[in-house]
Amino acid sequence: MRHKRNRRSSGTWSRLVLAIAALTAFAMIGAVACSSDADEEPTATSAPSGSEGQLPASALEIAAERGLTTDNITAALKTYVPTGEHDEYMLFASGGHSGQLLVYGIPSMRLLKVIGVFTPEPWQGWAVGSSETEAILDGGNLDSGKDIRWGDVHHPSLSETAGDYDGQFVFVNEKANGRVAVIDLRDFETKQIVKNPLSLSNHGATFVTPDTEWVIEGGQFAAPLAGGYAPIEEYNEKYRSVTTFWKFDRASGRILEDQSFAVETPPYWQDLCDSGKLVSEGLVFCGSFNAERATGGIEDGNPPFEAGASAGDMDFLHIFDLDKAIAAYDAGKYSVLNDFPLISIETAAAEGILHLTPEPKSPHGADVTPGGEYVVVSGKLDPHVTIYSVEKIKAAIAAGTETTDDYGLPILAFDDVVEVQVEVGLGPLHTQFDNKGYAYTSLFLDSTVARWSLGGPYESLNSDPGWSLVEAIPVHYNVGHIAAAEGDTVSPDGNYLVSLNKWALDRFAVTGPLLPQNLQLIDIEQPGTEMQLLYDSPVGIGEPHYAQIIKADKINAWEVYPEVGWNPATQSVDPNSVAVGEEGVTRDGNNVTVKTTAVRSHFTPERVNVKKGDHVTWTITNIERAFDATHGFALPGQNINLSLEPGETQTFEFEADESGVFAFYCTEFCSALHLEMAGYFLVEP
Amino acid sequence: MRHKRNRRSSGTWSRLVLAIAALTAFAMIGAVACSSDADEEPTATSAPSGSEGQLPASALEIAAERGLTTDNITAALKTYVPTGEHDEYMLFASGGHSGQLLVYGIPSMRLLKVIGVFTPEPWQGWAVGSSETEAILDGGNLDSGKDIRWGDVHHPSLSETAGDYDGQFVFVNEKANGRVAVIDLRDFETKQIVKNPLSLSNHGATFVTPDTEWVIEGGQFAAPLAGGYAPIEEYNEKYRSVTTFWKFDRASGRILEDQSFAVETPPYWQDLCDSGKLVSEGLVFCGSFNAERATGGIEDGNPPFEAGASAGDMDFLHIFDLDKAIAAYDAGKYSVLNDFPLISIETAAAEGILHLTPEPKSPHGADVTPGGEYVVVSGKLDPHVTIYSVEKIKAAIAAGTETTDDYGLPILAFDDVVEVQVEVGLGPLHTQFDNKGYAYTSLFLDSTVARWSLGGPYESLNSDPGWSLVEAIPVHYNVGHIAAAEGDTVSPDGNYLVSLNKWALDRFAVTGPLLPQNLQLIDIEQPGTEMQLLYDSPVGIGEPHYAQIIKADKINAWEVYPEVGWNPATQSVDPNSVAVGEEGVTRDGNNVTVKTTAVRSHFTPERVNVKKGDHVTWTITNIERAFDATHGFALPGQNINLSLEPGETQTFEFEADESGVFAFYCTEFCSALHLEMAGYFLVEP
Repeated sequence: MRHKRNRRSSGTWSRLVLAIAALTAFAMIGAVACSSDADEEPTATSAPSGSEGQLPASALEIAAERGLTTDNITAALKTYVPTGEHDEYMLFASGGHSGQLLVYGIPSMRLLKVIGVFTPEPWQGWAVGSSETEAILDGGNLDSGKDIRWGDVHHPSLSETAGDYDGQFVFVNEKANGRVAVIDLRDFETKQIVKNPLSLSNHGATFVTPDTEWVIEGGQFAAPLAGGYAPIEEYNEKYRSVTTFWKFDRASGRILEDQSFAVETPPYWQDLCDSGKLVSEGLVFCGSFNAERATGGIEDGNPPFEAGASAGDMDFLHIFDLDKAIAAYDAGKYSVLNDFPLISIETAAAEGILHLTPEPKSPHGADVTPGGEYVVVSGKLDPHVTIYSVEKIKAAIAAGTETTDDYGLPILAFDDVVEVQVEVGLGPLHTQFDNKGYAYTSLFLDSTVARWSLGGPYESLNSDPGWSLVEAIPVHYNVGHIAAAEGDTVSPDGNYLVSLNKWALDRFAVTGPLLPQNLQLIDIEQPGTEMQLLYDSPVGIGEPHYAQIIKADKINAWEVYPEVGWNPATQSVDPNSVAVGEEGVTRDGNNVTVKTTAVRSHFTPERVNVKKGDHVTWTITNIERAFDATHGFALPGQNINLSLEPGETQTFEFEADESGVFAFYCTEFCSALHLEMAGYFLVEP
Repeated sequence: MRHKRNRRSSGTWSRLVLAIAALTAFAMIGAVACSSDADEEPTATSAPSGSEGQLPASALEIAAERGLTTDNITAALKTYVPTGEHDEYMLFASGGHSGQLLVYGIPSMRLLKVIGVFTPEPWQGWAVGSSETEAILDGGNLDSGKDIRWGDVHHPSLSETAGDYDGQFVFVNEKANGRVAVIDLRDFETKQIVKNPLSLSNHGATFVTPDTEWVIEGGQFAAPLAGGYAPIEEYNEKYRSVTTFWKFDRASGRILEDQSFAVETPPYWQDLCDSGKLVSEGLVFCGSFNAERATGGIEDGNPPFEAGASAGDMDFLHIFDLDKAIAAYDAGKYSVLNDFPLISIETAAAEGILHLTPEPKSPHGADVTPGGEYVVVSGKLDPHVTIYSVEKIKAAIAAGTETTDDYGLPILAFDDVVEVQVEVGLGPLHTQFDNKGYAYTSLFLDSTVARWSLGGPYESLNSDPGWSLVEAIPVHYNVGHIAAAEGDTVSPDGNYLVSLNKWALDRFAVTGPLLPQNLQLIDIEQPGTEMQLLYDSPVGIGEPHYAQIIKADKINAWEVYPEVGWNPATQSVDPNSVAVGEEGVTRDGNNVTVKTTAVRSHFTPERVNVKKGDHVTWTITNIERAFDATHGFALPGQNINLSLEPGETQTFEFEADESGVFAFYCTEFCSALHLEMAGYFLVEP
């Protein structure tokens, strides 16, 4: 038996604190030093290209034992990311009605982070007590003042410069309550949430213009605008939708609500949009469905929505001329509703801001080709993709039309603007692009992703004839949207595609009746070969609707906040942040101010005494400068949990309405003495 | 150009609905039929064992191009789970201060599900409006009635039968506010949350007895019990902790609060527990730290907690005799505090319920060997693991002791009860076991996991001498707890171990200053070979503290709810569930009742008219019987989002306090016509 006892020599406590800090630092250095992989690369690395090399017998035995096919082995080797190496791409996927944004690595398909957006997320300290984060979420409150603490996130849009992702921001919409959020990719945190002042819901959002000057929020369900009421029988007359153009200021990283405006649209149910680029820059294309203006009422013998909204063969593609809309806004040609500028349908028609053209039935999105020459629409009840020519659209607009819809909006003739239709299969939904002249369309009913060739200027990029279906790969199951690597920019990368499958069925071990979604990674890189399914990634939180894939090295996120005392809400040093020596508890009447610093492994002060009924304002600064030295702060008995990254400051306020003794503590396992990083908050009766 | 227009023949709407339903069904069948993998297994499968087979040149080229080492290739092949195949194990990991429970598959390390527990989770419809789920979360409200809507989940405990996981339930504790939750593994949903009536915080929770008759909730921070107040200067006299024994009823799947009790403990900070098993069944072992009873106050020149609580060389292992505690409870030898039975320290001492023995400094957990013969304690500031003999403990208790602590609890002499100490490295924290006589201990400061050999009856299981360090594998970085496959049961599986690393540092692409935790999968299967690191899995939501790994085939989760109208809160058919034909809106004064069915792709009714000021009670039943045919239900303008799995019924209530027109809709992409699965809720002014 070995049994050692060390008696600590007497000394000052400050020396002991320093010793503990040094011990922790040593541990980190030691850990990093231990991390190298000493083993050798396989002999295959030196095998001549194309020849058959050899692998250790153990690897082959494993494959045999596990029943891996040759395709499985290839897929495993293409997707495995060894420890210490990084994924090449990041996928930003909407979290659906989790209310959050999900960040995955590609090719490993590992979930790197859940970013709190519309739903409080205590691990991140997102809107769980922190004054600044609660205020950001409150920015999306309804006019009634009601706090909404969940969301239905649909479509993330990465910021762009000249039509390419620039890795600076990502925007997302919230369909259920008509909100838009701005996330800063320096710290992957939500900075702003705006509530649409006119519309309760949205869908065709968010999409950015090629230089991110505007964030587009298309509508969905028609309703009386700005919270008005009208019986459903007055649907045609009083129900409307809006498409909102939010002005974005890159320098401040904020939407400028007072420089934004909306365009009124008829009570068709608005769907997804895409911004024109290059030759189509300045145009914005938004699909719609329920041009039938069905109003439901199956219980009264009316057609149910899914039938009534699908009765016609055609819906309307909406073509906005954003430059003309901006000119009308600048010229004051708008009314003001709920303090927000609204360009009427009449003005939109008169000023050439909005044209319609028929699109095959119940489409879900409009996708612009990399060069901006075409818009691809998939009517989900039509087996074709329909390709519109921007050149023809411009010509038709210039030529003028006498045909209008019931609201006076000009309708361009379908045959005048369509370039071609390609039959791709059942239930086409969403199209993405590669760098070899191919488009990829998801097919919900077929549960496949189709690869088809573009024509026109793209025809020379591959050996397939233009505008033809090439192949389709089965996915599992019921694919909604797809995302190709930088596949909706002016320069797609053409290597990876992710299929966002809505149903998983038999793909994963059963974890109860609520199944994960299934994101499947597909290799689309090899020209002339079939697409290959690489990986199934279950999504155990929320339903991704839409995603974008960016090269990881475009993102330059901070490892620690730039300066100690940083307030992420303002992206600057907080004037109330706490430096060493400034800690303490001060009282002004019933108002108690607590100033705390956090560093491994203690909070200063460790004892905070107040009286029942006091109003407490408490600021905490994490004074660490080491990468990953995050501290949490939990205050029992209150809905307060902070996450304090290195350098970060947070403030929270509450009424000390219950007497008692409450031990606060660090919630991030920060050191060997993390459990001792605690203190007592005492509320005297 | 191909362009097809189909005019629908006239017909009844009901026929159209049926046709759409049939189309959807066809799509599913087609999808499943498409899912087979047609490619062949590699030639290696027929290679003689131990020989070197061959792989396609492309696989070797990929490995070379991606720079994969031989170890990487082996790891990729050991962890890749092909599409349609299932993971062999499930890892249940606490979600830390996300408040949730995380379920991973092993060996793929994919996140299969986030289970909503202490924090609302709208994707699952968890406590976002649903009356039943809100009521479950309200079960954990504080005595003040305050809703707490986040939590710090620490230690999941799978239910056991005869000391083996049985796959029926999992329990978790919530440290910040002293709560315990029960999750039913038939549907992976939380069924009950109880608030500790005596203690604001906990830590040594949850741990179950070998047949899950009791769920153990150990304490952490000492404080006046049941919300009382006393100044910190009266710490020794008036601050206490408790260890609570919750009676669990397997038939109802509920903790029986009125058959549960607590045992008072001195104001040492309580730490993790483990239940005895087999030869130690009936005993419960709980570590503690801060036996020094430091009370902080660095700001006043006192030692900070991390120093004050670490000043002594020894803390106290608490040894409860549960049978004697139950006997005392049955005999009424308790007081009642806040309506809860509390066995005092005096009674615990007098009845032989609680003994102490010294344990090396600042331990984090007590881990019982598979046969129950030993208890392994790691003092995190001592480089040894300390192994206590249950036989010696029983003998020492029988022999009696005159030594007591300041509170009169008997102290067993260290040398009388310790079997051996093994030096394993710096910062030992937590120990798990395999089936070959080895123990595995995490080393926080070394950032390694040590494998060491057990002695006594385990010595014959391997060729290493008993009680000796064998090897250590680097992990990345700062490992807290570890989990081996069924590694804390009476029959560990001995193949996989997961290291729950607190810091990630350079392991993943940087997603801002808040880094994910890193769960690393380690192969511990091959006897006589070194442990091998297989996979890094970032945890982008919350901080797993503790985890357990169960064979996936032990879990028999439902694919759909057993009957239509099922209420998951009661696990029975809800008397208010809605059958086809029962849908509608009824009024009784200002109380409006809405009864809705949901099926692909419509809600019935589709129009719901109420008046401002009405109180609305709305029940929705998903009448689907198809696997994965979940519908969501979002009501804009309210914090209401439901997830309705096949067969499920949910009810919500609210005041229609705002007039307007609100389009409700399905939030799960359920069919090609999912977007049309909507309706209008109209609130007349």
